[in-house]
This record gives sequence, structure tokens and C-alpha cells, in this order.
Amino acid sequence: MMSSKQPPGSTAILADVQSRPDDRALAIDWVGVKGLKYPITVLDRAQGKQATVGSVTMLVRLPQEQKGTHMSRFVEILGEHHTEITLSSVQSMLQEMQQRLGSQRARLEVLFPYFITKKAPVTGTPGLVGYNVQLAGRTGIRDRLELRVEVPVTTLCPCSKEISEVGAHNQRGAVTVLVRLQGMLWLEELVEIVERCASCEVYSVLKRPDEKYVTERAYQHPVFVEDLLREIASELMVREVVEHFVIEVETIESIHDHNAYGYLSRTRDRSMPSGWR
Amino acid sequence: MMSSKQPPGSTAILADVQSRPDDRALAIDWVGVKGLKYPITVLDRAQGKQATVGSVTMLVRLPQEQKGTHMSRFVEILGEHHTEITLSSVQSMLQEMQQRLGSQRARLEVLFPYFITKKAPVTGTPGLVGYNVQLAGRTGIRDRLELRVEVPVTTLCPCSKEISEVGAHNQRGAVTVLVRLQGMLWLEELVEIVERCASCEVYSVLKRPDEKYVTERAYQHPVFVEDLLREIASELMVREVVEHFVIEVETIESIHDHNAYGYLSRTRDRSMPSGWR
Amino acid sequence: MMSSKQPPGSTAILADVQSRPDDRALAIDWVGVKGLKYPITVLDRAQGKQATVGSVTMLVRLPQEQKGTHMSRFVEILGEHHTEITLSSVQSMLQEMQQRLGSQRARLEVLFPYFITKKAPVTGTPGLVGYNVQLAGRTGIRDRLELRVEVPVTTLCPCSKEISEVGAHNQRGAVTVLVRLQGMLWLEELVEIVERCASCEVYSVLKRPDEKYVTERAYQHPVFVEDLLREIASELMVREVVEHFVIEVETIESIHDHNAYGYLSRTRDRSMPSGWR
Amino acid sequence: MMSSKQPPGSTAILADVQSRPDDRALAIDWVGVKGLKYPITVLDRAQGKQATVGSVTMLVRLPQEQKGTHMSRFVEILGEHHTEITLSSVQSMLQEMQQRLGSQRARLEVLFPYFITKKAPVTGTPGLVGYNVQLAGRTGIRDRLELRVEVPVTTLCPCSKEISEVGAHNQRGAVTVLVRLQGMLWLEELVEIVERCASCEVYSVLKRPDEKYVTERAYQHPVFVEDLLREIASELMVREVVEHFVIEVETIESIHDHNAYGYLSRTRDRSMPSGWR
Repeated sequence: MMSSKQPPGSTAILADVQSRPDDRALAIDWVGVKGLKYPITVLDRAQGKQATVGSVTMLVRLPQEQKGTHMSRFVEILGEHHTEITLSSVQSMLQEMQQRLGSQRARLEVLFPYFITKKAPVTGTPGLVGYNVQLAGRTGIRDRLELRVEVPVTTLCPCSKEISEVGAHNQRGAVTVLVRLQGMLWLEELVEIVERCASCEVYSVLKRPDEKYVTERAYQHPVFVEDLLREIASELMVREVVEHFVIEVETIESIHDHNAYGYLSRTRDRSMPSGWR
Repeated sequence: MMSSKQPPGSTAILADVQSRPDDRALAIDWVGVKGLKYPITVLDRAQGKQATVGSVTMLVRLPQEQKGTHMSRFVEILGEHHTEITLSSVQSMLQEMQQRLGSQRARLEVLFPYFITKKAPVTGTPGLVGYNVQLAGRTGIRDRLELRVEVPVTTLCPCSKEISEVGAHNQRGAVTVLVRLQGMLWLEELVEIVERCASCEVYSVLKRPDEKYVTERAYQHPVFVEDLLREIASELMVREVVEHFVIEVETIESIHDHNAYGYLSRTRDRSMPSGWR
Repeated sequence: MMSSKQPPGSTAILADVQSRPDDRALAIDWVGVKGLKYPITVLDRAQGKQATVGSVTMLVRLPQEQKGTHMSRFVEILGEHHTEITLSSVQSMLQEMQQRLGSQRARLEVLFPYFITKKAPVTGTPGLVGYNVQLAGRTGIRDRLELRVEVPVTTLCPCSKEISEVGAHNQRGAVTVLVRLQGMLWLEELVEIVERCASCEVYSVLKRPDEKYVTERAYQHPVFVEDLLREIASELMVREVVEHFVIEVETIESIHDHNAYGYLSRTRDRSMPSGWR
Repeated sequence: MMSSKQPPGSTAILADVQSRPDDRALAIDWVGVKGLKYPITVLDRAQGKQATVGSVTMLVRLPQEQKGTHMSRFVEILGEHHTEITLSSVQSMLQEMQQRLGSQRARLEVLFPYFITKKAPVTGTPGLVGYNVQLAGRTGIRDRLELRVEVPVTTLCPCSKEISEVGAHNQRGAVTVLVRLQGMLWLEELVEIVERCASCEVYSVLKRPDEKYVTERAYQHPVFVEDLLREIASELMVREVVEHFVIEVETIESIHDHNAYGYLSRTRDRSMPSGWR
């Protein structure tokens, strides 16, 4: 093979090493770029649009005949689309990735903080709460669009409450819900489902009457990690647009230096008695 | 339901809230403790044993009839076994978890740094390199034992080398290999496979003659993320003890602020022409 | 002291526990909120304004007579100002913090990703690069405004280049520059100073002719961590607006699994021969 | 300057680029290695010795005449001493760093998890709790030895307790105490001081009677971040060996998605009425 070394500064006829053939007979499941920070705009139920910052992963399948993929094209495609990241623009980007990278399968994940205005429960003082959201799409065999959101909540331990004369240990927990959808579901609705099932939701601003409210609300609604998983699952199972879900709960236990953790996943299966497996 | 509230200090007849029945008809896939730091001892091919520190996750399946699991029992089991974490002690711990938590399935993950003494390639100066290792076991349907190791390496870009008059961009990368085994494979061997396939392995101590060696070695062995995946996969596929593997490569590109990433996984399937799917 | 316990739901006359006197005779240096995520707008030299997401810390000094500060007021102040975070709005927020929290000293830190469009060096292909920026202000004794930016760069080792027949190890590094200013300095200018001093700057999109350019540029401009510190310091010392600086360089060595690190700080002192101490 | 390029494999007469003169007239405050993982042994009050894993930073001052430091020597020194990291071995390492790197000042930081066996408060069930510890030394002008420990605790909010009919929000918090000592103070004693001042200490194993105890203990000992800072400061100020301290408290608020934070530092000054400034 001839070397394509060029005099410094020359840009002519540079070898395309990535496009060369490969004889190891091994297709690569996924290859691309990861951790690319980019400003993006996403849809907002209340405001129309919201500007935020995404961390982006873009991958394609590499056929066995080809030595390497062309990493710069991923970033070019993102640069052309970052002004609006929606379920439908993710679809377009995936198709472009397949075409411009010459691949049968593409995968795109965008992780970003999303802000929702919440009013304190008694005084109504407004404040923003940030939620980590991931929008993930895949084309090729089994096209998929998944929405994932991490919701911070308060959990109060039912056992601690029942066995103790006064008080009950409680803590911040993170609930992560991933859904695969047949149709539309607002992110805000997913957040509300999770917050209703917790001992109490969290706020950014709480004045004294609000603090009294959230303390008592949590005490009156104790939940184990297990209860939270089951309550959220029950809510998701009655929504027709949900085809598959994964719920994870991790609570930063106030009485330990380790966390409690739970995982519950189901996929819709109309052949089963419950409609799910 | 009667309250079991007790006078402060009293310990008699405390309600077992977790053991109560649950009527939501939802078994929980996995529930337990996560992120528990513990000093552990592991096997070491060269020294016999090695003391290190683990981060432990212990989970069981919760049957649909039961309200909650008993979190303290996980920590008790770990406390009894932390003096030696091996493939066989992981099996014992999993069985105890099933028994003491009354569950059909258990899962245990132990993540720890593991140190191997390496000699610098020319001067022979010794130094320790640390590798993040995870030992993961699962019992119930489909018993499994998996070993995962993250190996830091140098990768040098074949395209940059070929098109440039002088030099070639290179960087630290992390290769993560997970294997499911039928039989014994030393962690050290897995590390050696990965290091041989990279542009060069990394060291903790390099004197000048060693630095010359690693610089030239990397320049003479350029690899894309894709090459590294394929070379390691080829090595693993000829080892009879390997039933399944997942290889991930992530390189901290020196010319970008994002990373290149690749993923390649295969499972042994003797009905396929290649023996793998 | 009478209890102020209220029937559930009641909001009347709730005790202000924080405002009570404290007799331990210990003022608290700093107390407040940390890690508050908020969408913010910052000035942009090229575009006028830029929307991004901040992580905010707000602190005040607590006088020794007072039991506690009022945490919710910090979040209220932020909520009123987040639409524009500039050097002057930071000043206003600090004054409000002092007034509404009844404190003599206030401190505010806002950490956010900031994006600059860069053109690839040969093909001119545009792409965004993100920089982590911190704007920090303090009032009370010694009012201060500090700007800090983290700039990803390429460094190529002069020793490796000189002793090796071919190639030279290089890697991504992070340069953090903090400046205390008397007057205006654009963030973009600070970034440009750092990038000029490195072996090469990093880009998000590089086509093949660009990759050839950055590879050769880095090879022709080798720098140790020490060189980079000294070059940047020399540049800052000739700018009259700079009163104080701290430069840190951390390089993700491609030949080791640990990093190289350096720190260089100077404060303007017109009584010294060099003008700095 | 003559090139010292050598034929591949040759090791003779390699240029010592770092030792060359530098004419920029800028000494470098600190330069060296960071994030080096190493197995270490530390003193243990109960067991004599404890094996753990350290993350090590080693830095020296670089005189203005010299181009660069010799990074490999740091790692060699660590390799010779890692078998025992104590206050006195840190002193020896610092002296060796000064000698072998030809510097007037050296700095060493070792961060490691340290485990203490704790018995559950009622049942006495034993379990290990891990604490992140940092041992830091500095020689040159102002020799210093500092010990820092991060202690996880439970904090229960006094305001929430007083204004609410039932319950009170509580959470895990991290207290970080750094001390500069004139004489000996066991790490274990520092941990005990912090744990006594919190609403309750945390444990790894708690059976039901223990959970009842810690719940009630926390409810009966509510503390603001400010109270915790002041109580710990008061305890440290009466210990003659303590010359300087910094206390930081960060609580993972269960009712918010941000943290509360406080900072209190004092230095002994026998000329002040209180003995401290």
C-alpha cells in the first residue's frame, strides 16, 4: 500500500483510511462519538420551547467489510439539527446518520436537564425544578424511541414510622423511569405520575407554611422503595401509549452511608392474562 | 391494623412491616442495597491474595405477595464473607441471599481496584498499575458469573499517522471487557490480551529509555477504536472458556473535547457457522 | 420556650426558629445553598446573549447572634435574576443577598457550560466547542469578582518528541484559568490566550485536511505542563486589567493511568520589581 | 540545539530535556502527578494496621531556572513507601521528594477510604463504616501536616420539627473536618466528635430495634447545618493539639433537589481574647 504522506500544509488527495476494506469478518455493533456537549432546544408543554444543554451520543453499526467509521460526520449532522431536538427530529437525524455513514442501524441519545416551574404547595411561591431527561432513538431492526426521566423525590420509611414513638427517617431519592411509547406522552405527565406516588415531591422554594406541609405530607404517605416501584408501575400499565417501561428507585438513606435500590420492568404482551410480561 | 408504636427505648415486639402481604400482584425484579463500601480480599495470581476495597451491590427478586425485603440482612451476609471474595465465595453468598431473604433469585456485584506489578519495558523499573474490576454473579433462572475489567491503554490514530508528515494524535483510552466463563480464566490474562491489542500498554513508571520505547511502539502500532474491538474479539473467540463477551472502547481523543466509542458483543452458539452469534 | 406545633394544614403564626438568638459566640463564615441547577442567560461576544444551564452556590456570613439563615430567600433571589447573569447582575444579587439575609458578606458562584463557534483550521467547517465557566463574586470586606474558564487543549511532550525516532506522545489536557479583573476582559479572549499557548487547540469537527493540520501543528509545538503554565502566565502579566490569576493544567497522559498537574499563581504588586508577587 | 534522535530501540545518551535551563523567569508553584491509585497500609487504632487503596498527589516547586520536573521520580518514591503511610512516613517522603527532585518545597496528598467497626446501638450487631480520609503534608516554608476526614451523618431539621404536627424532614449529610495538629489526635476521635454532634450517626447494619433507636435519637436531637458547625467547632477549640481547623457540612436535603452548605474555619491565635481568630 502506497503511503499518502503529504508535505506539511498540503491538503490534496489525503488517504481515506477508514473506507479501506477489513478482512476480520467482524461487524461492529456500535461505533461513534460520546459525551459531545451541545446547546439544544426542546419542546416545553407550558412555554412552547426550552433552551438547554445536551450531552450527545451518536452511534452506527459498522459493516464487517469496512475498516472504520467517519467520526466527523456525526458532529456535522448534530450541528445541523441542534436547534430543535424533538421526537421527530431525532427520527430525521437517525435517517441521516444511516445515509451519510452508510450503515443499516443508527442510535442517538441526548441527555439534558429540563426545567419545570412548580408552585410551593401552600404559599404558591414559584420556583424551577430541574429534571435529567434522556431521549433515545434507534433505527434498523426494531426501531425504537425511548424517553427517560430522573425525578428527585422524598421517601419516608413505613417501618421506621410504625416502630418509632416519634418521627420517621426520610431522605431524597431518585426515581428513573424509562418508557417506550406508541403515541404521545408529555414528559410533564411522566414527572407528575412519579411525584404523586412518592411520600412527597421536592421543590426549589419552600416558605415555612410549605415546609410544614411537605413534612406532614411525607409523614402521612410513607413508602418503601418497593411501594414506589409498584405504584408507578400500576399507573404506567393503565396508559395505552406505554409499550414497555423500566423503573429504578435509588434512595440516599439518611440512616446509612449506602443506598437502597429497586428495579421493576415490564413489556406489554397482549397474549398474557395481565396484558404484560 | 394495630399500631405497634412503642415507648422510646422499648425494643419489644416491633412490627415486621416488610413481611406484610401485598395485594398489587407485582413481583419486583430486583431490590436491595447499592454502593456499600467494604474492605475485601481477592485472589492474586502472583501473590496469592490481595487486599483492596469494594463497592458492593446486593439484590434479590421480591415475590409479589411480600411488601418489602429486609435490607439489613444483605449487609450482615457481606460482613460474614468480605474476608475473601472469589468466584466460589460469590456463589455461597448468592445462595445465602436466596435463603435468608426468602427469594428465588439473587444478584451480587463487587467493583474494586486490582493492582498488577508491571516492569517498565526497557529499564525494567517496577510499578503498580490499577485496574477497575467487577465480579458479578446471579442465581435463579440462568445462573451466571461474569468478570469485567477496565484496562487503560494508549491508542494512536492510523488516519492521523498516514495523512500527516510527522507525528500522529494519540490518547489514553479505556477498554472494558466483560466475559461469561465456562471454566477458569485469570484476570491477568484478560488484561494481557487487551494490552497486546492496543497501540501500547500504559505503565506507572517510565524512565527515559522506556518513554522512547512506548512512543515508538505506539507509532508503529496505530489502531482505530474499531481495530481494537476486532483484535480483542478475535482473541476471545478462540478461547474455549469464553461463552459470551462484551467489549467497549472509549478513547479520550486528544484533538477533540468528546470521546470516540465502540461496542462489540458476541455469544457462543455452536449451531452457527462461525460458532458465535 | 413554647412549642409552636400547629394542627395539620394550619399555616398561622409558625415559629421562626432560624431567627432565634444563639449564645455560642461563633459567627459562621459561610452558609447557604449549593448545587442549585437553573437555566440562565449570559452575555456572548458574538451573538449578544447565550442561553445555558447554571449550577449555583449562594452563601452569606451568619452573625454570631443568629441561630440560622433563611435558605428559601437565596432561591427566591435567584429566581428573580436568572434571566441574565452578568458581572453587573452578580453585583446586584450580592447586594440583595446581604439585605434580605441581614448579612455583612455574601458570595455567589455560577458554573455553566459556554459555547463558542470555531471553524476547523483548514476546511473552515464550523462546530461548537463547550467551555466550563465559573463567575464568582463576593462582597463585604474585600469585594471581588472572579472569572474562571476551563479550556480543553492538546499537549505534545517535548521529551518524547526529542528522544524518539518517530512520533511523540500527546493527550487531551484541561487548562483552568481564574482571573480577578480591574475592568473588562471577554471570556473569548481568555480562551484564545490559552489555546494559542497549547500544542494545538481542540475542535468539535475536523475533516481530513484539518486532522492533518492539527497533528502537524501539535508536533511542531511541543509543550510540557510547565511550559504551558509559563506561557499563559506571561500573556496574563502584560494585560493591565488582570490583578490576580491562578492557572492549573492537568493532562490526561496517554502513556500513564495518572495525570500530570501544575499550578501557577501570581498577584499584581506594584511595589515588586516584576510588578507581581 | 542538536537533536538527540536515536535509532529505534537505542537507549544510549538520551537527552534530558527537563533539566534544560528556562529563561522566562517564572518559578512554578506546584508541579507533579495527580490521581495515582496505589494500595497502601495505614495505622488503625483498633487493629494496628489497615490495608486500603489511596489516590495520591505529589507535587514540588520548580525553580525558575529549570524547564521541567522529572515525573517518574515521584512514582518511584511512592513505590518505595506505599507499604506504610503514616504521619512520619509522609515526612520522609516529602524530604525525599525535595532531594530527588532538587526542590525547596514539596507537597503530598493521600486520599483513602478508612473503615471503622461500629456496633448497632441496641442489638450490638457489628458492621463496618467507611470514611474518606485525606492525609496532606507540605515542607519548605511553613511545614504542615493536615488530616481531613469526611463523616456521613443524619441531620434532622429543627424548624421542620417545630412547625409540623408530626414528623420532621431529615437526610444524610457529609461533614468534612480538616485539622492542623501540634501533636497526636486519632482519626477515630475526630470521627467520634462529629458523630456526637449530629442528629444521629449512621451505621451499615441496623436491625429493627436499632432503627427505632436512630429514628427517635434523630428526632430528639434536631440540628441545622449551622448548629452542627458550631458544636463541632466548640469541641475542637478545647483540644490543645488543634492549631487550625476547617469544618464543612453539606446536607442532601430530603425536601429539595439542592443541598444546604456551611463552612466554619478558625486558627489558634493566643493573642486574641478567645484564643482563636
